[in-house]
Amino acid sequence: MSSIQRVLVVNGPNLDILGRRDTGIYGSLTLPEIEDKIRTKAAELGIEVEFFQSNSEGEIIDRLHQCDCDAVVINPAAFTHYSYAIRDALEALDVPAVEVHLSNIFAREEFRSRSVTAAVVMGQICGFGWVGYLLALEALKLIGGKDQ
Amino acid sequence: MSSIQRVLVVNGPNLDILGRRDTGIYGSLTLPEIEDKIRTKAAELGIEVEFFQSNSEGEIIDRLHQCDCDAVVINPAAFTHYSYAIRDALEALDVPAVEVHLSNIFAREEFRSRSVTAAVVMGQICGFGWVGYLLALEALKLIGGKDQ
Amino acid sequence: MSSIQRVLVVNGPNLDILGRRDTGIYGSLTLPEIEDKIRTKAAELGIEVEFFQSNSEGEIIDRLHQCDCDAVVINPAAFTHYSYAIRDALEALDVPAVEVHLSNIFAREEFRSRSVTAAVVMGQICGFGWVGYLLALEALKLIGGKDQ
Amino acid sequence: MSSIQRVLVVNGPNLDILGRRDTGIYGSLTLPEIEDKIRTKAAELGIEVEFFQSNSEGEIIDRLHQCDCDAVVINPAAFTHYSYAIRDALEALDVPAVEVHLSNIFAREEFRSRSVTAAVVMGQICGFGWVGYLLALEALKLIGGKDQ
Amino acid sequence: MSSIQRVLVVNGPNLDILGRRDTGIYGSLTLPEIEDKIRTKAAELGIEVEFFQSNSEGEIIDRLHQCDCDAVVINPAAFTHYSYAIRDALEALDVPAVEVHLSNIFAREEFRSRSVTAAVVMGQICGFGWVGYLLALEALKLIGGKDQ
Amino acid sequence: MSSIQRVLVVNGPNLDILGRRDTGIYGSLTLPEIEDKIRTKAAELGIEVEFFQSNSEGEIIDRLHQCDCDAVVINPAAFTHYSYAIRDALEALDVPAVEVHLSNIFAREEFRSRSVTAAVVMGQICGFGWVGYLLALEALKLIGGKDQ
Amino acid sequence: MSSIQRVLVVNGPNLDILGRRDTGIYGSLTLPEIEDKIRTKAAELGIEVEFFQSNSEGEIIDRLHQCDCDAVVINPAAFTHYSYAIRDALEALDVPAVEVHLSNIFAREEFRSRSVTAAVVMGQICGFGWVGYLLALEALKLIGGKDQ
Amino acid sequence: MSSIQRVLVVNGPNLDILGRRDTGIYGSLTLPEIEDKIRTKAAELGIEVEFFQSNSEGEIIDRLHQCDCDAVVINPAAFTHYSYAIRDALEALDVPAVEVHLSNIFAREEFRSRSVTAAVVMGQICGFGWVGYLLALEALKLIGGKDQ
Amino acid sequence: MSSIQRVLVVNGPNLDILGRRDTGIYGSLTLPEIEDKIRTKAAELGIEVEFFQSNSEGEIIDRLHQCDCDAVVINPAAFTHYSYAIRDALEALDVPAVEVHLSNIFAREEFRSRSVTAAVVMGQICGFGWVGYLLALEALKLIGGKDQ
Amino acid sequence: MSSIQRVLVVNGPNLDILGRRDTGIYGSLTLPEIEDKIRTKAAELGIEVEFFQSNSEGEIIDRLHQCDCDAVVINPAAFTHYSYAIRDALEALDVPAVEVHLSNIFAREEFRSRSVTAAVVMGQICGFGWVGYLLALEALKLIGGKDQ
Amino acid sequence: MSSIQRVLVVNGPNLDILGRRDTGIYGSLTLPEIEDKIRTKAAELGIEVEFFQSNSEGEIIDRLHQCDCDAVVINPAAFTHYSYAIRDALEALDVPAVEVHLSNIFAREEFRSRSVTAAVVMGQICGFGWVGYLLALEALKLIGGKDQ
Amino acid sequence: MSSIQRVLVVNGPNLDILGRRDTGIYGSLTLPEIEDKIRTKAAELGIEVEFFQSNSEGEIIDRLHQCDCDAVVINPAAFTHYSYAIRDALEALDVPAVEVHLSNIFAREEFRSRSVTAAVVMGQICGFGWVGYLLALEALKLIGGKDQ
Repeated sequence: MSSIQRVLVVNGPNLDILGRRDTGIYGSLTLPEIEDKIRTKAAELGIEVEFFQSNSEGEIIDRLHQCDCDAVVINPAAFTHYSYAIRDALEALDVPAVEVHLSNIFAREEFRSRSVTAAVVMGQICGFGWVGYLLALEALKLIGGKDQ
Repeated sequence: MSSIQRVLVVNGPNLDILGRRDTGIYGSLTLPEIEDKIRTKAAELGIEVEFFQSNSEGEIIDRLHQCDCDAVVINPAAFTHYSYAIRDALEALDVPAVEVHLSNIFAREEFRSRSVTAAVVMGQICGFGWVGYLLALEALKLIGGKDQ
Repeated sequence: MSSIQRVLVVNGPNLDILGRRDTGIYGSLTLPEIEDKIRTKAAELGIEVEFFQSNSEGEIIDRLHQCDCDAVVINPAAFTHYSYAIRDALEALDVPAVEVHLSNIFAREEFRSRSVTAAVVMGQICGFGWVGYLLALEALKLIGGKDQ
Repeated sequence: MSSIQRVLVVNGPNLDILGRRDTGIYGSLTLPEIEDKIRTKAAELGIEVEFFQSNSEGEIIDRLHQCDCDAVVINPAAFTHYSYAIRDALEALDVPAVEVHLSNIFAREEFRSRSVTAAVVMGQICGFGWVGYLLALEALKLIGGKDQ
Repeated sequence: MSSIQRVLVVNGPNLDILGRRDTGIYGSLTLPEIEDKIRTKAAELGIEVEFFQSNSEGEIIDRLHQCDCDAVVINPAAFTHYSYAIRDALEALDVPAVEVHLSNIFAREEFRSRSVTAAVVMGQICGFGWVGYLLALEALKLIGGKDQ
Repeated sequence: MSSIQRVLVVNGPNLDILGRRDTGIYGSLTLPEIEDKIRTKAAELGIEVEFFQSNSEGEIIDRLHQCDCDAVVINPAAFTHYSYAIRDALEALDVPAVEVHLSNIFAREEFRSRSVTAAVVMGQICGFGWVGYLLALEALKLIGGKDQ
Repeated sequence: MSSIQRVLVVNGPNLDILGRRDTGIYGSLTLPEIEDKIRTKAAELGIEVEFFQSNSEGEIIDRLHQCDCDAVVINPAAFTHYSYAIRDALEALDVPAVEVHLSNIFAREEFRSRSVTAAVVMGQICGFGWVGYLLALEALKLIGGKDQ
Repeated sequence: MSSIQRVLVVNGPNLDILGRRDTGIYGSLTLPEIEDKIRTKAAELGIEVEFFQSNSEGEIIDRLHQCDCDAVVINPAAFTHYSYAIRDALEALDVPAVEVHLSNIFAREEFRSRSVTAAVVMGQICGFGWVGYLLALEALKLIGGKDQ
Repeated sequence: MSSIQRVLVVNGPNLDILGRRDTGIYGSLTLPEIEDKIRTKAAELGIEVEFFQSNSEGEIIDRLHQCDCDAVVINPAAFTHYSYAIRDALEALDVPAVEVHLSNIFAREEFRSRSVTAAVVMGQICGFGWVGYLLALEALKLIGGKDQ
Repeated sequence: MSSIQRVLVVNGPNLDILGRRDTGIYGSLTLPEIEDKIRTKAAELGIEVEFFQSNSEGEIIDRLHQCDCDAVVINPAAFTHYSYAIRDALEALDVPAVEVHLSNIFAREEFRSRSVTAAVVMGQICGFGWVGYLLALEALKLIGGKDQ
Repeated sequence: MSSIQRVLVVNGPNLDILGRRDTGIYGSLTLPEIEDKIRTKAAELGIEVEFFQSNSEGEIIDRLHQCDCDAVVINPAAFTHYSYAIRDALEALDVPAVEVHLSNIFAREEFRSRSVTAAVVMGQICGFGWVGYLLALEALKLIGGKDQ
Repeated sequence: MSSIQRVLVVNGPNLDILGRRDTGIYGSLTLPEIEDKIRTKAAELGIEVEFFQSNSEGEIIDRLHQCDCDAVVINPAAFTHYSYAIRDALEALDVPAVEVHLSNIFAREEFRSRSVTAAVVMGQICGFGWVGYLLALEALKLIGGKDQ
């Protein structure tokens, strides 16, 4: 396995308003504050991070296609439950991807417990709030990228 | 309850071509003609209206995030049946929303009778053509906004 | 389209005890109080209203058969979810019918989101409490009856 | 098998308005006209008939309990699809029952192809309009009652 | 409607061994004995009958294609539950068809209560043993053929 | 918890003919005989009982609305499986209710194992024949009414 | 029917920690405290009781096999919903068994409303907390054991 | 039928990276290379082609609305399985559309065998790689456009 | 890939009566007329064609087993929806097969949108009437046979 | 139980080409080679065997009807999954039947794990290749025929 | 393939009480009596057998982990229908396993026709009572162990 | 939130044979080797760890009841998919629990994508092999225990 040097962190729809709503479920930090925490952790791990957030499925796919990092950490948010298009984009990546969810998606509405993207990523982390992103970075560091 | 002064009216995919196709189901008025009728009714009710139409899920979510009105009237069109992303955006609003459908969605194809957004709005009005938007405004005027 | 002059307002099972229970969901007005509000609105619209409430499916069907009004507004309450007999009675009407629900039936128990009657009425209004009846009258006034 | 002398003919909800609506599906005869045809046929077969129609599930059950005929012919109409109470009443009969439907219930809406009562009657006849009642009488005459 | 002069009676798989097995469900008459009873009834009604039995789906379809009668009475037996090919052949007929079942198919195994052919015939008669065929003839005589 | 003094015992459709049919499943006692046993037990427990039986859903709902007892014991019979209207009436009660079934509903036809009313009562007792009613009274006596 | 002299009371997984958690659902009594109440009631009824609790499916089956009592009262707890092995053990008993649940299993998570064991016991009692065990004893006393 | 002169060829999400990934399934040609092959074939058939590819559902809908060609060939890719919005856009076209898939969607993951768009196009071609687009053109040439 | 020289064209049940019925769905050409068109196209492509039609599943399987052509074009008609036996025969072929349907099977009855054979052929073409067969030949010519 | 002297071995569709295809799943022996092995084993057991193979459902049913052996061993192949007609023929046999499958039908495609015939035979053996037929003979020898 | 010398025979829950209950379904032999028959057959085949029975899923898994035989014969009894843990243990074996059921599991309750373990064993034998174990040994002898 | 000092690490069925089988899916480390890695990481984080592995559901529940640690990390293995008993034990814990899976359970057999325990733990981590346990410890350290 090769070493992970650069990681693209992608956040899906409605994550741009984190900290403004449903703080009981999603926590009170804003996305920039979470990105700061990720950046700090990444620095500790010797990883460079790039951030991308969009409410548009198409823009997320475009971004994934342009990805020149060694790994992807993605929180597809609501797209998790129906975007086969993002699934295909993730499956087409030649670097490992990790799916992160802030909340425990299995403890909420029925539809949230089904992920159409989970089958094509390396692994899934959910329920730990923003800490999940740090764990994803740690996982990637420890496991490394695919040798291809 | 607080008084409703400004309302954002959002129309989803394919509603920009109203009046051009399937006039038996959707009526023969174009969207600008319907917006005129809404504007007139709004004026009668002392409400200011803003209009937004997009065929893009992401743009609708962006627009809902920027909403600074007292209420939202939304016809999510086909997104009604699968866009959990718009559902999340509606749920995150701090103003009431009303879902409107031109046709009676329960009297058409099976898939149209399931709304993934209806559970997070105040109420739903369907089957009355463009009159539904006027009823939505009237409902908002009579019931008022959430005090928060 | 012909003008709506007289409207029959039908309320189904358990609506006779409105205001006594579950006021969080159904509101604190009693049925007679709601009927007063409907009567006032109807008068404004130049519509004459008749009221009928019954906990018996058969009586509701009988009443619909005897209907000599220009339109029907019906809140089938729990019958919404299984009474194919009322569905058939509504389908056999030669005047338009509007289905009203006090609560947002899509935001409650799963079984409430399925209406067996909605497919045979002109439209459905739900989630606006007693205001829904007023909107139904308004809709009928604006759209008018079927010419037959 | 014992001979059938008297038959109770029960018609369920909305069959009292036969001939007024949906004549394409149900035919143009009224219920009294159909009952005349049944009476004539019964006379030919040496059978005495009693008629009962109700839009009320409870009244139909009451009538079945009081049945002192040798057989029952029943068109449960919409109750066919959900009335387990009528099913239980039919199952409790100690005389044979025949289920009749005017229309071909398998060629209409999906929900009409499921009968909760068919499993507890002797047989089912559907799709022949009012002729179905005559066939039911003929079947009962030829097969006779249960010996008990 | 035109008069029915000749009727093709088709019996499906395993009906050639009637009277040998499961006489509790299907009765003790053999198929030739039942055909005798049908012939007698037909004669009374002034109808000429032709009989065809096969255990082969393809032969039944071939026979239906060659049908030059005024009507078809068919007991598709087990093919009832899955032969969309026979369904298509029945749908392509330009004369009316009646589906007959000896037993009450709704009172047996779950899979028997689903008919894929019933939707494309004029009507269905089940549960009256061989009497069902006589009723089918009677129905055809009374209703007549389609004018085309 | 407050003490239970008066209990309304409601029996649903077809229970008026208990003892006449299916005695293997429902036992050989008639409803009046069972009511005698309930009365005797109630007297032992210092409880006054009122009885109500109807084959009509609407009458049962009416009776529940008029209930001025401290508790309800109800055997909804076949209504158990589909009457959301009775469910709503039970949910609207301000006294505890106990659901009783004579037979073990889980050991019979599939449809009988689903109760739409059980979710809104205090508890359910089934399979003990008429003894179930006595157990229901005992349960109410031991647990008492809701303090409200 | 023979008289019930000795009863085995079996409690399934997690019932050993009753009173420590979820007291809102299960009550605040510990299992030994509930067993005391059962013992007292049993004494009143002239019944001797043995208690067995295990978190192990296999041990419960072993215990049921060794049962030399006249009846079994069992709260299978979570095993209710999937243990076909315990179902088979209950079915193999030659004494009657009663299934008890502390909470109303129909008013909780969807999966709790399905019992795989209920079909093979005499009856089920749920929703009355520890009182349910007393009712079970009472039922057994009144109905007696199977004569075999 | 009118002659087809100009055809719009639309490709959905992730088809811009054809040839880079999963070449076993999708083939080794890039999208520009496939477009060249389509252009050559079109020239042979005397058809002018326009190409459009987007990963964004909204942009595809916008493009379909602006379509002034005589026909559309569309490979909706992953949108095939859930985009009711694109379905509505296709249904609103006044020119014929053909759905093409590179791979045999029935021989892959279960979710790929369901198309929500196929019901509103003229026909579907799948499993022939880039050849499918040529076949679509040929089909359109042979069948022609709808006369309206 | 090897070149396709000879192709077996198989047509399933009821296709022998093409042109006689349902011409709105299947077109007005008879099967021999369609075969002429196929023969002409084949000649253009330098392909020799053999034709086989049967209403019998077994004969179709027999024919497929005897196939010594380089490819198969098959329209399984109604067998498409349930004949796992034909599926197995197609899967056992050592030459490529193409599935053709005259009508758009996704735009008709629900059961027609499920193909049990599509997963084991190279590709599927539907909705283009008899033109579909020509496209199938073209596809085979362009793609060629499997090298084995 | 009576002794088994003669056994009919029936093989269903596509088993005539055993050894030619999918040898990884079905083995490399041809059907005649397998029949030799069965004949040898039968001789050891003192059983006379007759063989029948057909790709036609109707012929298999015909053959079962003519069976004058003491038992049947049948591999219905793909008919296993949908032929209710063969099921009925097997159920009508008055000798025991054993169902054999070469492959482990539970370890392949989902549809193969459902047998519509297994419920009416004595037992099923699958996964042992041609050895399964020998086991079936052995089972019949050891258990014997039904005494009737 | 290597030769089978030693076989572990595992019996699951409630099989320790064989011969005591439900002898109509499971036969009248006790488990030790069946084990004697297995031992005798094994001796004939030159196989050494070890027996293990437990009502505990965990103990069965433990025993499978310690298995040092050349093959396993297992009757998982009720665990067949839900124990994914035993499935995993069977899948992890490096010797072949055969699943045996005394009764025909396809001819009983619906839940018994689904095996979660069958997909990971070599084959399944059911419906032949204790003879099934002998057949399993014979199958293993004839086929031999996996070479690994 | 309180600080996590001691963590109980529970491993379910078949995890005792890690490293012996399916190393492609589960990795080549044995459980003791993984426990060493966990111990090392725990030491770094200042956490004391206890380990428990069992193939018995009951023993796992017993161990969870005796838990006096500040948190639980659990890999329920196959119990994940059906053990409502372990779910109840986890729900009854008064310390946080984290669910870990070695493999990506969403990328394997369908049944593995459903977890009945995930809804009652803090979060889930899957797909990272033994690294998942380290991430779970890290998550607990960062988030801390529940204050109660």
